[in-house]
Amino acid sequence: MATQDNWYIERFETTGSAVGYRVSDKLDEVQSPFQRIEIYQTTDWGNLMLIDGAVMLTSRDNFLYHEMIAHPALFTHPAPKRVVIIGGGDCGTLREVLRHPGVESATQCDIDEQVTRMAEKYFPELCQSNADPRAKLLFDDGVAYMRNCAPGSIDVAIVDSTDPVGPAEGLFNKAFYESCHRALKDDGILVQQSESPLAQLGLIQAMRMEMGKAGFSGFWTLPFPQPCYPTGWWSVTMARKQGGFGFRREDAAARPFETQYYTEALHQGLLVMPPFMAKALG
Amino acid sequence: MATQDNWYIERFETTGSAVGYRVSDKLDEVQSPFQRIEIYQTTDWGNLMLIDGAVMLTSRDNFLYHEMIAHPALFTHPAPKRVVIIGGGDCGTLREVLRHPGVESATQCDIDEQVTRMAEKYFPELCQSNADPRAKLLFDDGVAYMRNCAPGSIDVAIVDSTDPVGPAEGLFNKAFYESCHRALKDDGILVQQSESPLAQLGLIQAMRMEMGKAGFSGFWTLPFPQPCYPTGWWSVTMARKQGGFGFRREDAAARPFETQYYTEALHQGLLVMPPFMAKALG
Repeated sequence: MATQDNWYIERFETTGSAVGYRVSDKLDEVQSPFQRIEIYQTTDWGNLMLIDGAVMLTSRDNFLYHEMIAHPALFTHPAPKRVVIIGGGDCGTLREVLRHPGVESATQCDIDEQVTRMAEKYFPELCQSNADPRAKLLFDDGVAYMRNCAPGSIDVAIVDSTDPVGPAEGLFNKAFYESCHRALKDDGILVQQSESPLAQLGLIQAMRMEMGKAGFSGFWTLPFPQPCYPTGWWSVTMARKQGGFGFRREDAAARPFETQYYTEALHQGLLVMPPFMAKALG
Repeated sequence: MATQDNWYIERFETTGSAVGYRVSDKLDEVQSPFQRIEIYQTTDWGNLMLIDGAVMLTSRDNFLYHEMIAHPALFTHPAPKRVVIIGGGDCGTLREVLRHPGVESATQCDIDEQVTRMAEKYFPELCQSNADPRAKLLFDDGVAYMRNCAPGSIDVAIVDSTDPVGPAEGLFNKAFYESCHRALKDDGILVQQSESPLAQLGLIQAMRMEMGKAGFSGFWTLPFPQPCYPTGWWSVTMARKQGGFGFRREDAAARPFETQYYTEALHQGLLVMPPFMAKALG
């Protein structure tokens, strides 16, 4: 999709809404075996990554997503040590996970190595923990990886994928969630990006239902602002393998690292869903 | 600005970002003495109002803004009875204010009667409290209205205006805030829409500084999602005339009306600003 008048506009057919950025230069483009990755320089938002024409992230606003997919789950699990990230090729989620000193290993499994190569070049700040001895980067099929994981070997599974079409389609159904359920320890947590709470509540509902069929319970869907995604409002959905634990607020308050968006007060506030969401999600 | 391929895209020069909607029909257009008002029908967001080409509201997402400009302030003031709304011509803020049984009068002063006439026709749900005996609709200059208010006569002043250019420019400076300060009772609260917390932090900082020069203290800036505005993330800024009071959480929890977005838990969570905002705003 070409830019027009120096603006890159993404029109979301399913939501009937659009988001865009003013760009000053096209920096790179690569066709991987899986998808087309483009990098633009914007006038106000730093670098911009597109995958198959869909905005993935900008330098300026990705902290919202990366903090919210990592910290709420890691401050809900009682003591997360072994973390697996499915997708997450830009490495921003990996960086946030490794801020937790208790994490002993974080394995990132993205199907497309080119996403990480582009991130290393154009979003180096997201890749600053890639050389951490606790980090392991795999470029492989996340569905297969999770299916082949040793049962009961993982504390937190993070599904940081593109939309549920194309390469990521297999990450939004009962079969995949069953693999996650089996791979997690009894007190394990699954967390997945779950699209727009305003425009895609039906999808969130379906995800929670499929997760439930796979044996998960105790769902939390946390909304957060994310300017570069459809409707500018996004969400993560967490689910526990077993009950009996919840938000470790004191630990979140005493976190030994800085955040830009996440606070323990905000996390606490989000545990009560906005009424329109609670109504739709039951 | 004409629509292209049935999409109305608004490009925000100051933020370098764009938001848009797929439209199915143009329903109306009027040139008032102050501005051009257009109404479109969208495919997914109900009706859409533009003022001078800027998206003002859609049927589907305006509840976020209207709840957040009304309820946090009314649940912070100790006992709000007399409320003045400057701007707010679409009447959605008036409707939210009048949900509070303790409010005895709510005066809305918008410079442009045509905004209200269009809202009555295309957003009738927002105007459902216009005939409430406690409501008073004026079409006049809000700056002059506030300047001429009897001193110490108002509990809550709500500034629900367009961006700080054009007709609303006079609502973002020390002289206007001094009028508000004088018109408010000692325990009065001023609340004003304060643009994007991500892209316009400088403006929020300037607003708080001007409010401070006018005698206000005890600021709170609360961010909230608002898909139809630049960056999809917006804010309100509240300021007290005098100290000594704060969020009435129990009353908010016991509110005798329904909300779609606002909850007392969320309000409590937002009293701690995201770190990047706290850093910028001191």
